[in-house]
Amino acid sequence: MKQVVAGVDIGGTNTIFGLTDREGRVIAENRILTRDYPDINDFVTALSDAILKLVTKEVELLGIGIGAPNAHYYKGTIELAPNLPWKGIVPLAEMMKKKSRVPVVVTNDANAAAVGEMVFGGAKEMRNFIVLTLGTGLGSGIVINGEVLYGHTAFAGELGHTTVVPGGRECGCGKLGCLETYASASGLVKTVSQLMCDSRDNSVLRDIAPSALTSKIIAEAAAKNDPIAVKAMNYTAEMLGFGIINAIVFSSPEAVFLFGGLTKAGEILFRPVREYVEKNVMPVFRGTVKILPSGISESNAAVLGAAALAWNEMK
Amino acid sequence: MKQVVAGVDIGGTNTIFGLTDREGRVIAENRILTRDYPDINDFVTALSDAILKLVTKEVELLGIGIGAPNAHYYKGTIELAPNLPWKGIVPLAEMMKKKSRVPVVVTNDANAAAVGEMVFGGAKEMRNFIVLTLGTGLGSGIVINGEVLYGHTAFAGELGHTTVVPGGRECGCGKLGCLETYASASGLVKTVSQLMCDSRDNSVLRDIAPSALTSKIIAEAAAKNDPIAVKAMNYTAEMLGFGIINAIVFSSPEAVFLFGGLTKAGEILFRPVREYVEKNVMPVFRGTVKILPSGISESNAAVLGAAALAWNEMK
Repeated sequence: MKQVVAGVDIGGTNTIFGLTDREGRVIAENRILTRDYPDINDFVTALSDAILKLVTKEVELLGIGIGAPNAHYYKGTIELAPNLPWKGIVPLAEMMKKKSRVPVVVTNDANAAAVGEMVFGGAKEMRNFIVLTLGTGLGSGIVINGEVLYGHTAFAGELGHTTVVPGGRECGCGKLGCLETYASASGLVKTVSQLMCDSRDNSVLRDIAPSALTSKIIAEAAAKNDPIAVKAMNYTAEMLGFGIINAIVFSSPEAVFLFGGLTKAGEILFRPVREYVEKNVMPVFRGTVKILPSGISESNAAVLGAAALAWNEMK
Repeated sequence: MKQVVAGVDIGGTNTIFGLTDREGRVIAENRILTRDYPDINDFVTALSDAILKLVTKEVELLGIGIGAPNAHYYKGTIELAPNLPWKGIVPLAEMMKKKSRVPVVVTNDANAAAVGEMVFGGAKEMRNFIVLTLGTGLGSGIVINGEVLYGHTAFAGELGHTTVVPGGRECGCGKLGCLETYASASGLVKTVSQLMCDSRDNSVLRDIAPSALTSKIIAEAAAKNDPIAVKAMNYTAEMLGFGIINAIVFSSPEAVFLFGGLTKAGEILFRPVREYVEKNVMPVFRGTVKILPSGISESNAAVLGAAALAWNEMK
């Protein structure tokens, strides 16, 4: 009988999940709508039932790994998550374990991405690396000596909230000038707005409503040498490089993996990030850190990361 | 027979060393002048002989721990240390082991201070903490899950070289605006010079040649409410707080210990650091991090830290 684990990614809209074998093959998957279950008990029942429905007689379910926003790894809870329907502190691991009768582990999505990179992706041989997820925000999963860094509170690895511009852009966390307000898909859009105001350059982006502007549109414009788009991409790369440099002097990783929507820009983003880091990092670290795209395809990265978490716990 | 280890602190001027028992009592100590030995072979012979001379018939020497600038923990070497007489890469652990016939481990002084704090100081019950040594520069030793963070290169934990002011003060590392150019004893002196230029405040510090100014003099003036000294102390505390905040979002430590010359200022330094951190850290970390003075007396901290390193290896 084939042994599998379930990987679950809980998002504000969808909760996607799949059964995954030890080699990282997703052998069955499905989804439920998170918002359909305002009561956490109903959600746990629906999710557990839907996972168990995938478990045919040919496979044995060994455990469940869950990636979710505001997850507390040590306690197995989701705490005060603004984008999920359930208020307060939800003991998700315990509830899921009761229903499914297998071990359940939860962590936040960026940490799950880091475990995914280690178990199934580009970091299989690495003991020290960092994954940065560049979407609406900037999430980070940090691996030290082969283990995800959780720290005293379990909330370690919030590199998106290092201050890079004192008194800078407003961040959702309540602070000003956090890295993620610059180095993320939404940060890139903000930078375009800033540049359209500060500069007189022509740009196709001036014809698009700010609310309709996306990192994808900007990356495409940059690929065609649109001056505002190119400047915005370079500025975003430098802010990201600045954040990476400060992470390097802290933990001296072997690699920094970039993941998520913004990285679809490819070399338009990676080249200036690498150049900035090599030029500005403390000399002792020059040439010691690879800046790489994630080794996991984005289509099933969330499920694979959560599944990797479960496999990793069984080591 | 009492079991002991030797703790050795190699500095540009003195090399001090002592035998230490498991409880952190220094039962014999001595020193040699580093500069007397321009040939590393002579230094190793002299140091080894001097240590073995302390080993009476009543004690058994189990190992030697060495703290030294530019030490490479993984390789047991000292590499390209500008303030030591020996050029290139010195395989110190191997050389000392051959002479002394006991295990030898080397690390840099800030990492030794962190191990000292964990084994003999204020971090005995802690698994995640950071020690910042505030002297001429800012050194840092980071402990994650009960282990010193070395990273891929062995040079992790260079928090003194996080950039806090892009384009700011020149740093010895070749970069601009590093934390240690602001948050250190020498950074405090620089800040006084800056304030004496920018402000019209009276100050007793204006009667002292810049080259004679020390953090001790400034702290004493601040204690007497000298306006420049008070402003300089607060600015230094804020820059230090800024660096601490960015470290907190990275590793979520239980405590940050401050150690070294600058901390003799006591509450004049600690109070504004604590206030700045609590006010400005990301909300999820508020109230989670203690900012503490080192639990090791400074007089024999270097020997104890290096000895703790040796004891820790034997666990």
